Amino acid sequence: MENQRPLILVSNDDGIRAKGLAELVKALRPLGEIVVMAPETARSGSSCALSVHHAVHYQMLRKSVGLTAYSCSGRPIDCVKLAFHTVLERKPDLVVGGINHGDNSSVNVHYSGTMGVVKEGCLKGIPSVAFSLCSYAPDADFNPIVPYVHDISAKVLEKGLPRLTCLNVNFPAEKELKGIKVCRQAEGDWVNEWEHVTLHNDRDFYWLSGEFLCTNPDDTTTDRWALANGYAAITPVKVDVTDYGLMDELAGWFV
Amino acid sequence: MENQRPLILVSNDDGIRAKGLAELVKALRPLGEIVVMAPETARSGSSCALSVHHAVHYQMLRKSVGLTAYSCSGRPIDCVKLAFHTVLERKPDLVVGGINHGDNSSVNVHYSGTMGVVKEGCLKGIPSVAFSLCSYAPDADFNPIVPYVHDISAKVLEKGLPRLTCLNVNFPAEKELKGIKVCRQAEGDWVNEWEHVTLHNDRDFYWLSGEFLCTNPDDTTTDRWALANGYAAITPVKVDVTDYGLMDELAGWFV
Repeated sequence: MENQRPLILVSNDDGIRAKGLAELVKALRPLGEIVVMAPETARSGSSCALSVHHAVHYQMLRKSVGLTAYSCSGRPIDCVKLAFHTVLERKPDLVVGGINHGDNSSVNVHYSGTMGVVKEGCLKGIPSVAFSLCSYAPDADFNPIVPYVHDISAKVLEKGLPRLTCLNVNFPAEKELKGIKVCRQAEGDWVNEWEHVTLHNDRDFYWLSGEFLCTNPDDTTTDRWALANGYAAITPVKVDVTDYGLMDELAGWFV
Repeated sequence: MENQRPLILVSNDDGIRAKGLAELVKALRPLGEIVVMAPETARSGSSCALSVHHAVHYQMLRKSVGLTAYSCSGRPIDCVKLAFHTVLERKPDLVVGGINHGDNSSVNVHYSGTMGVVKEGCLKGIPSVAFSLCSYAPDADFNPIVPYVHDISAKVLEKGLPRLTCLNVNFPAEKELKGIKVCRQAEGDWVNEWEHVTLHNDRDFYWLSGEFLCTNPDDTTTDRWALANGYAAITPVKVDVTDYGLMDELAGWFV
């Protein structure tokens, strides 16, 4: 079938009802057939976590020309794995995660379920792109970034990506973007990470919270710098995480 | 305090009662003061997942000379973050994950909660090492590998590791190891990933299952090859996952 339209698998970690997912589908529909398999509920911070201790299920929510949507009881990675196993009739041409409500730049690449979607797509050999908007508001304004999401996805469909590399694309929450920068992952860590709450005067609980402390804020090549200066940040991400440069030295430890 | 012994933080994803954790503590005790903060229950496949939708708590289980142990209601990454925030009186000299009951080589580096522990330690600037035994048996025999775990940990304490690199160490389940190989992450993917179960004749559920299909099985430089041939496999892992080699080409797409 030479004239088949591209097949695009979409998932996220904010859940099937998130506005960011609807906006992503809007951006992608002109580019191909869309299959959505997304978590029933919000699953932020899922990283590449798998459901190993319980079974998962899915159900069809909608089927129309060019768009089929399913919800799944599992985590973002389960969604991708289950879609490949069950509902995709052929290998997709693109796997897209998002649009995440919140910043997935820098070290968040490790915690993000949206990046989990995209790492899984990449491990399955499919060009894969994650999109995130640096606003946690459920009703965030995605209008300024929808054209970028469309154009970047179209470019990846056209050019492909190297095997074992996917894209982490983050947008600042601004009315007008200055453009696109290709970046590296900024360095830093989360600090003051827990909020302490005492319940019934004797039980201590901790809520994850905190601020990100960037340790190279003046480095103009990072994703954090691009975002802080009004640019969309595209960070190419490897799923072969071997530190090749250290192998020889390390081998010397054990001779 | 110049003569302070090294402080070693230990966690895992099989839970505080796992045999592999007890064996790890046994291997590490001669090297320093041990603080354990591990999940209350098994949390396999947790990757770098965070508890963002609920609060977590912890409790002390044991305090003796050189060893303090806590259990935590959260995931492996929560354990590390919470230990840094609450119970560690100084920066640890080493963060160790494991000993995992099961293989964390190749692409499992992305799904593993044991690797989550170690990536988090590394992001916090601490030399960090994950240990895994390629046996899923709860009563697996760790005796052949305990001396290796001790020696590799001692070496890392002595030499340190480059910032943003941690170690993923996997052992084959054999009586006698042939030695140690420093490796790269093998390529491949999981296939036949779901077992389909129909309940009450009408509800379809899926259990994660599957086999790993290595796509470069003859490559003698990979962790899978080392394990298949009786060697302990040490794979250095980067937490800066930027694909630096692709940045220029990608920038060319958007000029």
